[in-house]
Amino acid sequence: MENLLSNVNGLSEELSIVDNYIDKFLHTERDAGTVDNVFSSVRNSRGKMIRPQLLLLAARFGPHYQDRQRNLCKLGAMVEIVHMASLIHDDIIDDSPLRRSRPTLQHKYGKDMAVVAGDFMISRVLRYLAEEQLMQEALNIGRTIEEMCRGELRQMACRWDTKTTIDAYLRNIHGKTVALFVEAVQMGARGSGASADLSDCLTAIGEHVGYMFQMRDDLLDFISAEDAEGKPVHRDFADGIYTLPVLYAFGQPSCGPRLEEIAGSEPASPGYGGLLREMGELVRQSGGIDFCRRQIENHAAQAKQQIAALPDHEARLGLGNLIDYLNQ
Amino acid sequence: MENLLSNVNGLSEELSIVDNYIDKFLHTERDAGTVDNVFSSVRNSRGKMIRPQLLLLAARFGPHYQDRQRNLCKLGAMVEIVHMASLIHDDIIDDSPLRRSRPTLQHKYGKDMAVVAGDFMISRVLRYLAEEQLMQEALNIGRTIEEMCRGELRQMACRWDTKTTIDAYLRNIHGKTVALFVEAVQMGARGSGASADLSDCLTAIGEHVGYMFQMRDDLLDFISAEDAEGKPVHRDFADGIYTLPVLYAFGQPSCGPRLEEIAGSEPASPGYGGLLREMGELVRQSGGIDFCRRQIENHAAQAKQQIAALPDHEARLGLGNLIDYLNQ
Repeated sequence: MENLLSNVNGLSEELSIVDNYIDKFLHTERDAGTVDNVFSSVRNSRGKMIRPQLLLLAARFGPHYQDRQRNLCKLGAMVEIVHMASLIHDDIIDDSPLRRSRPTLQHKYGKDMAVVAGDFMISRVLRYLAEEQLMQEALNIGRTIEEMCRGELRQMACRWDTKTTIDAYLRNIHGKTVALFVEAVQMGARGSGASADLSDCLTAIGEHVGYMFQMRDDLLDFISAEDAEGKPVHRDFADGIYTLPVLYAFGQPSCGPRLEEIAGSEPASPGYGGLLREMGELVRQSGGIDFCRRQIENHAAQAKQQIAALPDHEARLGLGNLIDYLNQ
Repeated sequence: MENLLSNVNGLSEELSIVDNYIDKFLHTERDAGTVDNVFSSVRNSRGKMIRPQLLLLAARFGPHYQDRQRNLCKLGAMVEIVHMASLIHDDIIDDSPLRRSRPTLQHKYGKDMAVVAGDFMISRVLRYLAEEQLMQEALNIGRTIEEMCRGELRQMACRWDTKTTIDAYLRNIHGKTVALFVEAVQMGARGSGASADLSDCLTAIGEHVGYMFQMRDDLLDFISAEDAEGKPVHRDFADGIYTLPVLYAFGQPSCGPRLEEIAGSEPASPGYGGLLREMGELVRQSGGIDFCRRQIENHAAQAKQQIAALPDHEARLGLGNLIDYLNQ
């Protein structure tokens, strides 16, 4: 990811600044022992920083990008912290033992610590938004976290429901994932003083990237070999979370009924591993994986159209590379 | 509680306004079904609103109390929402089936929902602080939530540790409970334009009330009959959370060693109920309960001294009644 975007002038330097702000915003010094261990685990759980990158790329199209660079990096750090906090709380929900091939916080320190660690991160976002007098951003981040909660709750409500529609799925992932991508892009656009038209165009790109990102994640969970992404395969299915390839397959007469049978099986039963493999094969045969790929391609094509409508700037290349990366 | 304070002119009316703001701040309309059910459960989990009452009583000593009344009620609502969110996340940590004699959110909908519901509430506090342009309050609430997280983490680190000192206990409950009481009082003082001296005096009262409140809670968990407060008795001890009466008793040569033995027993073992009863008896004999009561009385006496130093105002009576109620 970092290599991909290194061709955009100055972006890696900005990401280092974002990184420093994340450290600053999550810095704790008063405690020793367990408390501090938890917080360092939090600080070290950083990912690919796709959201800050998107924010900074979007910001390059605004007239005030240069003089607001530091501020934009701060916003990038806040978006990433919101994302990190949501991962920690999601892992409690999913009971995940691994994230990015490393033990999750809740696996390492227990659910209790994970609940508090996520809350701590949000308290820091709140505090620094206030310290930096970022009222409008506070409002938007508040709304985005609410969207994320809604998405998470809706997804829970759809759990084990084999009749979940693809529309419901799209609504769920909009809250769960897309909303924060959109917020990142809009922060970049607003923060650099982009015009309303430009901001709309960038928002659309952020939305497509968000959908692509989540669908790709669903696809990887589905097709990758065990542990390739540091996650067990078909974990979503076993948890009753039916992602796009599966939902498509449920609707196919050739395999839908058998898939529903498998979905009704007890995950703790001895033959369940075999059933999961059968499920994987059925979904593939039904065209569910191809369907998911096509959706990703559609979003990629639409995003590229929007990118083409942006003013000529090397950041367009960066956005294009991001799209290609997610469309691999 | 409400009866106790009804002698303070206008306070019940203000609490109704606070109540309406809580409804407004937590209002959701877009979702139907489970999502909305969770949010109404959240709205209905309101308690005695001690923190908003303290905020509003403190505010009466400031010169701008009258013209900032609405704003103060909004702040009261936010403090109560932070408190409600912390209860929901604490219940996940404590695995409590009951709170105020009603099933906890996590017991009713599972831990997953409870994590998200708490996050949703905090997102609303963030959003409305921003909408109301309450920068300074956002900063302070951010810091207070952080304090609460620290207290919670420290308490977890002390779990099952029979060598926990009373100082460590006091530090833990400062974060867990006292910090939000102090914040409530300070919001009232600042919000009504109280002088620095007055604010210091009110802060000290808030601090004493916070300690009294938590110690009384610990005492009730210890001495009340099963379900009298809607909570099982000695639950804290069985969870490895050693409160003031127990910590005092651990330090007494007459019963410390036996108590440590009991603390080391498996809570799932068949004779554990009997061991808990023995523990209760030993703590009582050691003077642990009396010690806890004396601490509460000390805080009450100090709070009353501070109240006596406040300007003559009927709100002094309200604060005095609150102290008497917690010192029963």
